[in-house]
Amino acid sequence: VSNNRRVILAERPRYIVPTANCFRIENGPVPELTAGNLLVRTTWLSMDASLYARVQRVSNQAEPIKLKEVMVGPAVGFVEQSQHPDFKAGDLVSGFWGWQDYAISNGTRLRKLDFGVQKPSYALSAYGASAFGAYIALTTLAPPVAGETVVVGTALGGLGHIAGQIAKLKGCRVVGIAGSAEKCQLAVEKLGFDACVNHSDEDFAKNLMQACPKGVDVFVDTTGGKALDAVIPLLNLNSRIAACGLMATPHFGEAAFKGKYQSTMSFMYELINRRISVRGLVVFDHLRSSLAQFHTEMKAWIDSGKVKPMEDIVNGLQNAPSAFQDVFESRNRGKRLVKVAD
Amino acid sequence: VSNNRRVILAERPRYIVPTANCFRIENGPVPELTAGNLLVRTTWLSMDASLYARVQRVSNQAEPIKLKEVMVGPAVGFVEQSQHPDFKAGDLVSGFWGWQDYAISNGTRLRKLDFGVQKPSYALSAYGASAFGAYIALTTLAPPVAGETVVVGTALGGLGHIAGQIAKLKGCRVVGIAGSAEKCQLAVEKLGFDACVNHSDEDFAKNLMQACPKGVDVFVDTTGGKALDAVIPLLNLNSRIAACGLMATPHFGEAAFKGKYQSTMSFMYELINRRISVRGLVVFDHLRSSLAQFHTEMKAWIDSGKVKPMEDIVNGLQNAPSAFQDVFESRNRGKRLVKVAD
Repeated sequence: VSNNRRVILAERPRYIVPTANCFRIENGPVPELTAGNLLVRTTWLSMDASLYARVQRVSNQAEPIKLKEVMVGPAVGFVEQSQHPDFKAGDLVSGFWGWQDYAISNGTRLRKLDFGVQKPSYALSAYGASAFGAYIALTTLAPPVAGETVVVGTALGGLGHIAGQIAKLKGCRVVGIAGSAEKCQLAVEKLGFDACVNHSDEDFAKNLMQACPKGVDVFVDTTGGKALDAVIPLLNLNSRIAACGLMATPHFGEAAFKGKYQSTMSFMYELINRRISVRGLVVFDHLRSSLAQFHTEMKAWIDSGKVKPMEDIVNGLQNAPSAFQDVFESRNRGKRLVKVAD
Repeated sequence: VSNNRRVILAERPRYIVPTANCFRIENGPVPELTAGNLLVRTTWLSMDASLYARVQRVSNQAEPIKLKEVMVGPAVGFVEQSQHPDFKAGDLVSGFWGWQDYAISNGTRLRKLDFGVQKPSYALSAYGASAFGAYIALTTLAPPVAGETVVVGTALGGLGHIAGQIAKLKGCRVVGIAGSAEKCQLAVEKLGFDACVNHSDEDFAKNLMQACPKGVDVFVDTTGGKALDAVIPLLNLNSRIAACGLMATPHFGEAAFKGKYQSTMSFMYELINRRISVRGLVVFDHLRSSLAQFHTEMKAWIDSGKVKPMEDIVNGLQNAPSAFQDVFESRNRGKRLVKVAD
């Protein structure tokens, strides 16, 4: 490739879901290496739902990008040329340089993947932000003990499918929530969930109750909305909620913020009565304290077969916009990645 | 008194507020002392909002009493006669024997007030469940540090007026919420709050914002509802909510549980973004670990004038039902007590 394709933000989403038509592909020259910097070639991109904040007009989660700028996001690639003292050509690196074939980097936020990652793509799936979030949820925010029941909000999601497997290896009963019978089957057969309940079924709440005969001790909440409403009545004394995302939001646009669900009033009531703890996840907060430990533990779990990352790969940078939209419409099966080059 | 007056539950409240007409006074003989037991004479009763759970048909907070049974609740009195090895006539005791002049006790849940309580009534105000709740809120559930802003939901409430003073002695800016200009003035002038905002004002949310120029770090929430809705937008990064009560509920009956307020969806969103912790208060959970420490600290604070309990005393056992209803209708100014005898 002597052309640098760049996926730029052409327009902002009307509501929250960044649809594929918000992006445009531009072609241009491969950037010239400048003194002290390095040139990286992208091989993999991670399609993270949390990136929605980057394309909003304003966000209090992250700095939004400007119109016509390259879409940012976690990437993996190889150092192609380097004038940077810490990196040499051929180094496998991850960073946040975004959706383009090539980028110049001064090394900031660039991480060498030298901790024994089994496959380059695993840097974004098994060791990426979503998986790290699952780890923090179940070790720091809402740790379960063996024998407890853990409900995972999006069983086939980038965070959820790892959370379920971590809860399993900790000796818990793991019940997933997903949006189709096919996904539920995958969660049980491929990921080892004890049960998985389809939230599209009319009897969702009743089915969830039956899948949790001893109630719910830990809820890894990635959606809010209907799933949270169904879990709240099942929560046991001293149960814990890790609030990891609100994927139910985009489907309802602004309406989701206008009282469609449980009111805080009844939520606070249950929270007091049942001594429920609720802690939110922002992965950045935990990098310093827990990332190295996470790498070590995850590597051992993968090597021993206890965790099987499920990757959902779309080929081609040009398909990144629709691959990204899919995540908001729950079309991914495991961690959604885009393969840009070998 | 050779007659034993007993306040019994004549009918259950229609919604949540236990109105005075739910109770009836019955007269009867003073109970006979039986072997191994003691006879206690009631001098003070504590009118705690949390007792509402005892008069409901079902409750998952506490065991409801039966119709025609004596209303239960924290009481202080003197041992009149004793055949119990641990108590002697004249001992000042607190317990849960309820709304009657005399009671026979086998000593269970009876506590000798021998830790230096300055006045018998203080056992129910300064050292009672509400004050202990305030202490737990600000030491365990949502501890502030000096310089932070603490908002207290019911500035003149049994819990709130102590919480405000504890936050003050910890070096915080303390902003109260109350339902009238007169109450707000009391909070500032008598209790030392830095500011107090009237939630009946049309500009309540704006006034609260102006009273908290650096945002809110700790919210001692005793009401939920309107106060919580106004505080949420002001909460700082890493702020803490101690969920101590839902006094806004009774005013709206069942409606409060049907989506009148912020939805959990937007609440979870703020909770994640701003790393807000929410912990509920159930005082029983903390008795073993913290009651002795609380007694010691509160005694020192009162002796040094740092905490001034505000007692709101109604005379006469016959007035307990209306004195109790008052608490739900926010007519108390400080801890509402009923004086039964000298």
